[in-house]
Amino acid sequence: MTSVNTLHPELAVPGALMAAEVAEQPAVWQRLLDEGRAQFAAAAARIRDYDPRFVLFVARGTSDHAALYAKYLTEIVHGLPAGLVSPSTMTAYGTRPNLGGTLMIGVSQSGGSPDLVRSLQVAREQGALTVAVTNSAGSPLAEAAELDLDVLAGPERAVAATKSYTAQLLALYLLSDHVAGGDGSAAEVLPALGRALLEHDGAVAELAQRYRFASRMVTTARGYSYPTAREAALKLMETSYLSAQAFSGADLLHGPLAMIDPQVPVLAVVGEGIGGQAMQQVLPRLAEQGADVFCVGTPQAVRGASAGVALPSGVAEALSPILEILPFQQLARHLALARGGNPDAPRGLRKVTETR
Amino acid sequence: MTSVNTLHPELAVPGALMAAEVAEQPAVWQRLLDEGRAQFAAAAARIRDYDPRFVLFVARGTSDHAALYAKYLTEIVHGLPAGLVSPSTMTAYGTRPNLGGTLMIGVSQSGGSPDLVRSLQVAREQGALTVAVTNSAGSPLAEAAELDLDVLAGPERAVAATKSYTAQLLALYLLSDHVAGGDGSAAEVLPALGRALLEHDGAVAELAQRYRFASRMVTTARGYSYPTAREAALKLMETSYLSAQAFSGADLLHGPLAMIDPQVPVLAVVGEGIGGQAMQQVLPRLAEQGADVFCVGTPQAVRGASAGVALPSGVAEALSPILEILPFQQLARHLALARGGNPDAPRGLRKVTETR
Repeated sequence: MTSVNTLHPELAVPGALMAAEVAEQPAVWQRLLDEGRAQFAAAAARIRDYDPRFVLFVARGTSDHAALYAKYLTEIVHGLPAGLVSPSTMTAYGTRPNLGGTLMIGVSQSGGSPDLVRSLQVAREQGALTVAVTNSAGSPLAEAAELDLDVLAGPERAVAATKSYTAQLLALYLLSDHVAGGDGSAAEVLPALGRALLEHDGAVAELAQRYRFASRMVTTARGYSYPTAREAALKLMETSYLSAQAFSGADLLHGPLAMIDPQVPVLAVVGEGIGGQAMQQVLPRLAEQGADVFCVGTPQAVRGASAGVALPSGVAEALSPILEILPFQQLARHLALARGGNPDAPRGLRKVTETR
Repeated sequence: MTSVNTLHPELAVPGALMAAEVAEQPAVWQRLLDEGRAQFAAAAARIRDYDPRFVLFVARGTSDHAALYAKYLTEIVHGLPAGLVSPSTMTAYGTRPNLGGTLMIGVSQSGGSPDLVRSLQVAREQGALTVAVTNSAGSPLAEAAELDLDVLAGPERAVAATKSYTAQLLALYLLSDHVAGGDGSAAEVLPALGRALLEHDGAVAELAQRYRFASRMVTTARGYSYPTAREAALKLMETSYLSAQAFSGADLLHGPLAMIDPQVPVLAVVGEGIGGQAMQQVLPRLAEQGADVFCVGTPQAVRGASAGVALPSGVAEALSPILEILPFQQLARHLALARGGNPDAPRGLRKVTETR
């Protein structure tokens, strides 16, 4: 008798694929910084020439969290109003909006979901400048867009997206920075900081034991870090089958706070930037509810929490989401394993999801 | 010894405030239809004159779900791109976007949250046409906007918003219809249909027993009904302290499906419009996961579910969210009572939430 899958030996160790792809992220970022710059400079030139009045994003799942991050960049760095498109309005409802002056960016790992492809096709017909950000050059989404950007993460085999997510974040940052006239050099610190942060993997594995029997979690953050809270919740749902809900710290106070008690752990991102400072209004309310708080943030915030992982200091707030998600990816994997699951093969999921 | 609160006799019966406000909704809608039309005609004339290129919404909590509904109206009926603003970008981050050609609509029951007020003030300074939709004429948000619309729901005393939500939906529908050149007359069927739908209260009370011991729920819908799924989840969290998570039917297939099993009831909205039809891709996947489905929708969809409430037929899809939420409001109240809570006084919440 053998338990080794000889066709796919990596599947013999549950979570091995996800572990490898989580660990690979600093190298992926380095590749994007070394080899990917030219595409951002070229796309940025076209975008500056088009001079958009509004920016729309279309994405689903993990990629939607990268799009949400880019929405913050658009609003804060570029001072442009931005929105996340509901794909169904252009597919199921057949809307044909006037999109002159609009930049529409589709974000997708596979570039294959028909509703996203259709949304970009319609947007292009309706006058938008269209950009595809994918991990799959030549995919239908890349073909549908006028400009296509490759996040160069390499083939992603784990169902739970990890390296493609941070590569999307970095690609969107680099695009934004080039449009703003920069060269993306502030991001060059990331690979080394990412490698150092990933060294906490053993500590995160121990912390994961704390949540072995939790059935519900809440994740929360504000500003640039809010997409981190969303993505952390999705990773936990996908791999550990927890109910994990993400709220902006402000929205949490508008209702969902009621469901938080000592049995519902809260995962909070409290960095040193403006978003982290805005969380200072939220933390005392969580304490009043008796919440157990797992904090990824400043050393001070981690000391005030029940558990957590400290982030490096001195990183530009706009870049911090690329680092912040790493401990949550590790937590999701270790928690799935602790609960007897296989984070590489979540029940009910396929790697490429096709929605219409 | 007496258990009657003589200062606030209605608090003697847990959930009495919420029950009264849920039941009051058809009368609220009738008042808005009878007395509120002139304000929509006047605001619509100003909006047509301004001729917006882009529409932004700013709101939090329940009001954010009304804003999401209006985003669908904007995209589908008016063919205009639309977005939900992250208030922190204009408050915490101090962004000053160029908002010429932009219509910005703030939605709030109380009209009192400082971050929303500040967002509308900034938007107005930056060239946007600003509209406040509140249940509180003379509130700071109404004062901050160029145009203010009163949803005329009357004082709302239960912490869990119900009548102000459907009044917001109806007000946003009436504004949209007037901008499109209509007179809102399609909405005149709503009060009678709402009264008939509310008569299922006893049946919903029985159905609530089914979920007495559930700790997690998922709500799902697509298109116009997606805000219903979001609001249903919030009501359940606020009153019954469940973890209730809302997903668009499409997003559900992109990851969260993994956490659904026979122990996680799914509340689905499956109406007869395009959004309901798009859910036909989702229901078989839920069945594969062994999900228990509570359906608010067509009689056929309810028959195929584990439990549910049938909606009246022949209602325009754009109006259906105003009706669909009623059974979920009833379910939230009955479930809170069944679980020993008081839906009028959720732990940790205040009626007016001030976030910055």
